[in-house]
Amino acid sequence: MNEDDFFMERALELALKGSGRTSPNPLVGAVVVRNGETVGEGWHMAYGGPHAEVHALKAAGAAAEGATIYVTLEPCNHFGKTPPCTQAILDAGIRRVVIAMEDPNPKAAGGMDRLRSAGVIVDTGVCEGKARKLNAPFIKKVETGLPWVVLKCAMTLDGRVATRSGDSKWVTGPEARQWCHRHLRQRLDAILVGSATVRADDPSLTCRLPEGGGRDPLRIVLASSLDLSPEARVLRQKSDSATLLVCAQGVAESRKQPFYDLGVRILEAPSGSDGRLDFKALMPLLAEQGIQSLLIEGGGRVAASALKSGVVDQVVFFYAPKILGGDGIPVLDGPGPERMAQCMTLSGMEVFSCGEDIRVEGYPE
Amino acid sequence: MNEDDFFMERALELALKGSGRTSPNPLVGAVVVRNGETVGEGWHMAYGGPHAEVHALKAAGAAAEGATIYVTLEPCNHFGKTPPCTQAILDAGIRRVVIAMEDPNPKAAGGMDRLRSAGVIVDTGVCEGKARKLNAPFIKKVETGLPWVVLKCAMTLDGRVATRSGDSKWVTGPEARQWCHRHLRQRLDAILVGSATVRADDPSLTCRLPEGGGRDPLRIVLASSLDLSPEARVLRQKSDSATLLVCAQGVAESRKQPFYDLGVRILEAPSGSDGRLDFKALMPLLAEQGIQSLLIEGGGRVAASALKSGVVDQVVFFYAPKILGGDGIPVLDGPGPERMAQCMTLSGMEVFSCGEDIRVEGYPE
Repeated sequence: MNEDDFFMERALELALKGSGRTSPNPLVGAVVVRNGETVGEGWHMAYGGPHAEVHALKAAGAAAEGATIYVTLEPCNHFGKTPPCTQAILDAGIRRVVIAMEDPNPKAAGGMDRLRSAGVIVDTGVCEGKARKLNAPFIKKVETGLPWVVLKCAMTLDGRVATRSGDSKWVTGPEARQWCHRHLRQRLDAILVGSATVRADDPSLTCRLPEGGGRDPLRIVLASSLDLSPEARVLRQKSDSATLLVCAQGVAESRKQPFYDLGVRILEAPSGSDGRLDFKALMPLLAEQGIQSLLIEGGGRVAASALKSGVVDQVVFFYAPKILGGDGIPVLDGPGPERMAQCMTLSGMEVFSCGEDIRVEGYPE
Repeated sequence: MNEDDFFMERALELALKGSGRTSPNPLVGAVVVRNGETVGEGWHMAYGGPHAEVHALKAAGAAAEGATIYVTLEPCNHFGKTPPCTQAILDAGIRRVVIAMEDPNPKAAGGMDRLRSAGVIVDTGVCEGKARKLNAPFIKKVETGLPWVVLKCAMTLDGRVATRSGDSKWVTGPEARQWCHRHLRQRLDAILVGSATVRADDPSLTCRLPEGGGRDPLRIVLASSLDLSPEARVLRQKSDSATLLVCAQGVAESRKQPFYDLGVRILEAPSGSDGRLDFKALMPLLAEQGIQSLLIEGGGRVAASALKSGVVDQVVFFYAPKILGGDGIPVLDGPGPERMAQCMTLSGMEVFSCGEDIRVEGYPE
């Protein structure tokens, strides 16, 4: 690995520390390097707070004079919640700026030009693929206005999420479950399940980390006719985040009242021709609620219908070293195509081991 | 990697070249090394022919004097089809013998003792895990008398082997399909499918390699009531290997006659309480037919019933980067357990990439 890649990898690592706290801002990390030694590090810690560059330059102090700064995203060139980072870089006397990716947001872009015209050496595209992956939700929101959607499922090797009686405790092991809390629930803005899952499992849908301090995502339950018990854990537990119920248009106010009484928000959304809530139509409504990234956790009908609607950007499938061997509940449920050639295909499939389980990630085409 | 591991890996690689030709003998490779240089290589090429050590020593000639020989299996010490390898090693003047694993066959064992008492240095256990994996069928046959059974399935990421209409062309890509021909069909003694698969797909079940020269496994079709068309490809195509039909006990001779007329062998086997052929009872019958290793390729009911009977030693599951998204044909079909905790579990699960697909291997506990 060359020096640029080495320090950019570190900046990407730092960026991740802001997970779940910066939305709708991107995750950004920065490292100041002088004569091959790190003299300052920083990351964007929370929405509205100082940018990564400012933290790193402050940590470097006078050592930033003549140094190189590695930043995972093009430094901003505008006054937003904070002054432009380009100015801070120039004030610190930085000689070279290495950038992983350009800012897709036209409002914030222009930083590279500003730096270059001030005589700073600017190199870009270092670890760009990783940087784009890190900020996929931010990039999608800027480019399309819609949330980045991740579908997560956990199944046996034969594609079952539960036995025929509905028992699903547990499919995957503790490492996989913890990975989902740390890397999905904590990082993504909201988590969505269907009302059937709430009725069957009564999940809390919070982010629980062994060291504490997990940030709960907004909880969204799809419940066309609000057929949910007001006793459901998802409506009552203590959490910093709210719960949002999504129902069909025209549900009677009297059905909504018990949920309003619990302080729960309700959003009406269009239904598709199959009578189920229409994911395609729901996404802009969730974007209006400030949701930049969404985790869908099932069950099988919700997962299949999200995939079929084309809203899913990434799938994260866990496989446990287990075989159910027959008629359990399939991971995806609903009508399938007639021909194998009509399958959805994934691009960029990658496989990871996760405790005793396997994690497969990919991007529906 | 130290020198012993390095040369033993090479010997294991050589052993593999005998794949599909040595049964019921094991696969064995040997390398003769003098002053850190390879001076001779050999492998057991075919049942009844010279052992690996003899080939390697012959290749080394006079250079074997004072050299080290690496052998993947303890050299035999008895007169079988060929004279004892221990004698050939002593005659060649070998100074040190490095062995991956001891011979589990008591008739052939004793080689190490013989060599040691003649003053040769003998070291054992180098790459033993890999050597045991290589000869798992041989070891199982020696230890239990029963065939080593591999279950292979190819599915979408959501566990489907075909669409609801039965279309399965193709789930996995050409690399995965070729891997199965080279590493499963060519290596294992026999391949087994159910009659439903023959009726649906009319497969040939031969070993087809791009370079030609594949060795066809014996083809076994489970057909309780012999409900098969005599036109089926599996009964008629050109092949060096035979086809064996397995039917229930007491099937009328008149039903058998059309198959006898084609030169097909028929074996009667007991049925279980569910009326399906009983895998547990079938295995000793196949062992009597000289089958040391068996590949089961499906369909879903045959695969599930083999797994449930407990005869499967290894599973090889392929996952294509595809999602069917609903009601296709599940990889395993039949009654499943009530509780997730009653799942079969796999030990030693490993994941490999295979072209665009993923291959998962593991051992049912």
